[in-house]
Amino acid sequence: MAINTKVEADHNAPPVTRILAEFVATHPSRGWNDEIEHEAHRTIMNWLGCAIGAARHEAADAALGAVQFLQPAPQAAIFGRHERVDISNAALINGITSHTFDFDDTHLKTIIHPAGPVCSAVFALAEHTGASGRQIVDAVVLGIDVSCRVGNTIYPQHYDRGWHITGSTGTLGAAAACARLLGLDVEQTAMALGIAASQPVGLRDQFGTMTKPFHPGGAAKAGLMSALLAREGFTASPRAIEAPRGFAQVTSTKYDWNEITGELGQRFEIAYNTYKPFACGIVIHPSIDASVQLRKQGVTPDNLEQLKLRVHSLVLELTGKKEPADGLQGKFSVYHGCAVGLLFGRASESEYADDIVTREDVVATRRKVQAVVDDTIDEAAVHATAILKDGRQIQVTVEHAIGSLQRPMTDQDLEAKFSNMSNPLLGETRTRALLDACWKLASAPSLKALVALTH
Amino acid sequence: MAINTKVEADHNAPPVTRILAEFVATHPSRGWNDEIEHEAHRTIMNWLGCAIGAARHEAADAALGAVQFLQPAPQAAIFGRHERVDISNAALINGITSHTFDFDDTHLKTIIHPAGPVCSAVFALAEHTGASGRQIVDAVVLGIDVSCRVGNTIYPQHYDRGWHITGSTGTLGAAAACARLLGLDVEQTAMALGIAASQPVGLRDQFGTMTKPFHPGGAAKAGLMSALLAREGFTASPRAIEAPRGFAQVTSTKYDWNEITGELGQRFEIAYNTYKPFACGIVIHPSIDASVQLRKQGVTPDNLEQLKLRVHSLVLELTGKKEPADGLQGKFSVYHGCAVGLLFGRASESEYADDIVTREDVVATRRKVQAVVDDTIDEAAVHATAILKDGRQIQVTVEHAIGSLQRPMTDQDLEAKFSNMSNPLLGETRTRALLDACWKLASAPSLKALVALTH
Repeated sequence: MAINTKVEADHNAPPVTRILAEFVATHPSRGWNDEIEHEAHRTIMNWLGCAIGAARHEAADAALGAVQFLQPAPQAAIFGRHERVDISNAALINGITSHTFDFDDTHLKTIIHPAGPVCSAVFALAEHTGASGRQIVDAVVLGIDVSCRVGNTIYPQHYDRGWHITGSTGTLGAAAACARLLGLDVEQTAMALGIAASQPVGLRDQFGTMTKPFHPGGAAKAGLMSALLAREGFTASPRAIEAPRGFAQVTSTKYDWNEITGELGQRFEIAYNTYKPFACGIVIHPSIDASVQLRKQGVTPDNLEQLKLRVHSLVLELTGKKEPADGLQGKFSVYHGCAVGLLFGRASESEYADDIVTREDVVATRRKVQAVVDDTIDEAAVHATAILKDGRQIQVTVEHAIGSLQRPMTDQDLEAKFSNMSNPLLGETRTRALLDACWKLASAPSLKALVALTH
Repeated sequence: MAINTKVEADHNAPPVTRILAEFVATHPSRGWNDEIEHEAHRTIMNWLGCAIGAARHEAADAALGAVQFLQPAPQAAIFGRHERVDISNAALINGITSHTFDFDDTHLKTIIHPAGPVCSAVFALAEHTGASGRQIVDAVVLGIDVSCRVGNTIYPQHYDRGWHITGSTGTLGAAAACARLLGLDVEQTAMALGIAASQPVGLRDQFGTMTKPFHPGGAAKAGLMSALLAREGFTASPRAIEAPRGFAQVTSTKYDWNEITGELGQRFEIAYNTYKPFACGIVIHPSIDASVQLRKQGVTPDNLEQLKLRVHSLVLELTGKKEPADGLQGKFSVYHGCAVGLLFGRASESEYADDIVTREDVVATRRKVQAVVDDTIDEAAVHATAILKDGRQIQVTVEHAIGSLQRPMTDQDLEAKFSNMSNPLLGETRTRALLDACWKLASAPSLKALVALTH
């Protein structure tokens, strides 16, 4: 692997730190169309569901244990739990839980998971300050625009170099969102971005460990603190993002500044956010999608003789595990994914529980799945043929899986995903009320009622 | 400026994360000679004096303001102030103040300022846990060894790329030191280093702003939290420092692993720590040193006609300001530095106060200083000639300035530097007691008595 990074420093970058600060501090409240406004609510709901779903994960327990050693003031909620901690550590822990299942949102152009850093910081701060729902939605849209635009600027070289781009750009997004929420002026917002620029969080070598979800949490915390510092008059370089020794040039070898300045305030990156329907790597999503579609057409484990898949080579390369032994291994098995798709009509986190992966009917079903590589099949596609015991064949071709930009999850899909994670912890009544509160967030006077439902 | 960074990823790096973890967790208490032990006390004393000296700086006020918004528990002291905050934020603020005057220690080989991240984390944690002085000194020596060895491994390319190496390696040093203090085992210590590796703090573009001293503070806080997380079972990559997508390879293009493994446990990097006698850039130190020596030989502003300096070209390039208007500009004036050297026999932070820089006798004296570039003069040297009004000439040649490894500050020099910063805040009696407590730290049962003297 050769990393070709011979570059000239760019001394003539436009003042993007200042440009972003002005945008964040002065863009009108709800200065976008209904689609953006709706997408913001979908982003927030999906993030909150993921955070609640992983609230009892051992990563959350460990992080909370460390934080409790600091004897934090009970300023803000940890979603899905009864404990309360100071706002900076609520941002940390909710950021960790929201990414723990690898089930959160994806800005596909940069593979940033934008909600974790931004929403986790915004909600913790807003709960404590009593900010309105309108202010919260504004902060989330603008914060995500900042992190994704900076991501567009430096991707893919930044990611290829080894940065977990969610955490490295997330600090800037969280700082921007919190600056907006605190009502900082342009100067102060520039300082908040500057302080945040010095704190990129996240190495890709951490994938597979708890430190991966730590990245959005750490970014949320660092961004929130950066905004608080800026409010107090703390100073930073006003060119901290674009200077030759600033964030972009230090952490990448590509910096397309037009990605920050182009159509700023007109095009919003949250429009390109997507949500995962299945709690596993995106490469198996077409195959699971096909299995769910076959189930809807009457295919059952009982009447199925064999399920034949024609897939892109990456599918078997990354997820070719035939006999997964536990939940984590199940995530790397296209066979398990199809089995639960056929059996349950979904592949949410609960279908990756250890006892599901080893359950007799699941094992029997996955052994009926065969996958072969077909070079004519696109990475986003699959061709599936169910051969039934009665000799009939049912074919399904997926060009773009559910959850992609081309076939986004419906609001109903997102609610079902949320409920699947929330019901076991909060019960159905509370979960339903929480979903309603999410859809109505922009008109809520504060977070008080919503937060009361989260534990 | 061309950054040549075309490199092959190194997939065969030795397991240095594990090696460092084993070293930190198992090296015997006081497993070094008397010189190392003494240098540790000098490092701690110098750091504490700097932190006290800047305790009332506006950067400290701003940082404390932000932290107070979190309603922190009063777990640990902010040196030089009465407020107490939680240990993570005490580490942050003491880390900021210790570097605010640019007057702290320097590991010349890497230009890391090692004490800020490490000591600020250790003292905050130790105060709260009641650790003994012995444990504290052990943690400081080992933590500084980790950050400086990692620094040696990646310097200078890491620094040239734009990282403020004090903060980027400081997180690892602070994590190591806190892991030691908490008594973590080898596995947990490796995880602490791993979590810390994902949180490098510091861009060089911040120089000249409050975010520069934020870097050691942020590193102290992040390292401390990493150790607390590891104690709770939080996981990270066990190869987070050396992997192709780990800290060293992501943030540098040079990685000489032997700098980590060579003579580990025998050679200690704290032995190469130095302390600044003058509160300004190292490049003017020889000239100020010469002025102080001339003063000792009887040269006074009254009997001086002219002071002629022959200097390296960098001196005028970086510090050639002839008529500085305030304290900050004074730091970039070799003329002002020599004037206060002649007048006061020192150039501590108080000689860079605005009203000193503009004081009539200081202005008159600096106008008697002439500096010319001489290509035969080394960067570390100066040739100074005082021409007196009676016609006599007195010459001083400095090969290595006071404060260099070749001519280290004496313990007495360090005490005087400390007192100069501490006396105005704590008074002479308390300052004297604090100096004694520093020298005796290793035998103190806890930090209690020392901390009680710091405000």
